Amino acid sequence: MRLDVVTIFPEYLEPLNVSLVGKARARGVLDVHVHDLREWTYDRHNTVDDTPYGGGPGMVMKTEPWGDALDEALADGYESGAHSPVLVVPTPSGRPFTQELAVELSAQPWLVFTPARYEGIDRRVIDEYATRVPVVEVSIGDYVLAGGEAAVLVITEAVARLLPGVLGNAESHRDDSFAPGAMANLLEGPVYTKPPEWRGRGIPDVLLSGHHGKIARWRRDQAFTRTALNRPDLIERCEASAFDKKDREILSILGFAPEPGGRFWRRPPAVEE
Amino acid sequence: MRLDVVTIFPEYLEPLNVSLVGKARARGVLDVHVHDLREWTYDRHNTVDDTPYGGGPGMVMKTEPWGDALDEALADGYESGAHSPVLVVPTPSGRPFTQELAVELSAQPWLVFTPARYEGIDRRVIDEYATRVPVVEVSIGDYVLAGGEAAVLVITEAVARLLPGVLGNAESHRDDSFAPGAMANLLEGPVYTKPPEWRGRGIPDVLLSGHHGKIARWRRDQAFTRTALNRPDLIERCEASAFDKKDREILSILGFAPEPGGRFWRRPPAVEE
Repeated sequence: MRLDVVTIFPEYLEPLNVSLVGKARARGVLDVHVHDLREWTYDRHNTVDDTPYGGGPGMVMKTEPWGDALDEALADGYESGAHSPVLVVPTPSGRPFTQELAVELSAQPWLVFTPARYEGIDRRVIDEYATRVPVVEVSIGDYVLAGGEAAVLVITEAVARLLPGVLGNAESHRDDSFAPGAMANLLEGPVYTKPPEWRGRGIPDVLLSGHHGKIARWRRDQAFTRTALNRPDLIERCEASAFDKKDREILSILGFAPEPGGRFWRRPPAVEE
Repeated sequence: MRLDVVTIFPEYLEPLNVSLVGKARARGVLDVHVHDLREWTYDRHNTVDDTPYGGGPGMVMKTEPWGDALDEALADGYESGAHSPVLVVPTPSGRPFTQELAVELSAQPWLVFTPARYEGIDRRVIDEYATRVPVVEVSIGDYVLAGGEAAVLVITEAVARLLPGVLGNAESHRDDSFAPGAMANLLEGPVYTKPPEWRGRGIPDVLLSGHHGKIARWRRDQAFTRTALNRPDLIERCEASAFDKKDREILSILGFAPEPGGRFWRRPPAVEE
């Protein structure tokens, strides 16, 4: 997979040399190209931004440097044999980045990232490239960053670990939170390793029982309780038929109740003041 | 504000020297301490992980290095006058990181981050420190990373930009997506800057009109349309009274309808197959 990143802070992308993504590059699974946007400015102040049309606070990133930088990054990629680029635009206004989207992106041969600063990039840049390549505007969460670079690190890491040959033996995505399967929609519960006692704290007996069925049941109860507490929204998205008898006991204790039709379990609506 | 980060990949935290966070450090607003977890290992392989009790794939991070590292980081902070640390544990099983939580964390004097790798940290470490300091387990989104370091960069950046004296004139958080106010719950719409024409593309006439009321209306319509398309969940959380006549027209066109009680507008439920 080829990755291009255009940014005014190339040094922010240093973590792409480290750990899992760094190893994927070393193995030739990932071919990463980071471009400094300021190389495509032509005034002596290397200006990349200007005031917004219509007024208001903040600055907007200019069309010309972005257009010229993307043209050159795309041309370079095509010349070296890459094909079918997808433009990935990190923005708080985008569609939410999810594990599903990570899986979709991991099937692409070439991703081009445009992390912005200030109030974002002049809209015409996105409109222009949307006529040539698929564009995904994506938000990594409901919070505001100083720029898109941290989002590029997040997306790249989530995508890279799904590429064949990247995860080693010490890692695993079989039981990932958010992965499909028996634990679909459940957060992972607590984990333990040696020693059996640390600062007066032991580990749950069941984990030493050797009884696979009981261990699996315990893990599901833990994951289920944690999900109901921290992420009731994930529980509410599950059809009632996904819950077994023990699940329903936990749900009741935590204040969830079956809906009139019986298809979903929900928290009771908040009481109005 | 003091920040401590304990990690097996200190070099992943290099972006804390760059851009907004780097400037906040240079100005003395942030005091950042990155610790290499492997300094608290005592075997010649610098082992930080072991197999999970109860079996299963992946490895679990061991109690001893984390306990010793956190003890020393905390002792060092207290000695240098820091107080009231909050332990911030990035994990996909945590509560969602939101702008609200960023605001809460930005009011704290001292954050201690524990980015993990593999299947996570032996639970006893969190249980132990939870008896001494407040612990927030937090997830930056519904996707799986290779480790918590990228989450630390995200959380740190979201928090740092809210600290007094950090944002410069070129930046602004008045109109942030997810900020409180008139645009609460709305994603930001498109932005434009000079030149007025680029590659045959102009800018919307209204932005040149000088008419503040019309510009504000246009921006709200754009933000509203974008939110209804990309984040219907944000619309569904708004009480119906938040929508004006134009909003309701857009909602109707996009397939939203008022609920029987009239308190919320919702998408129609998916048709069953």
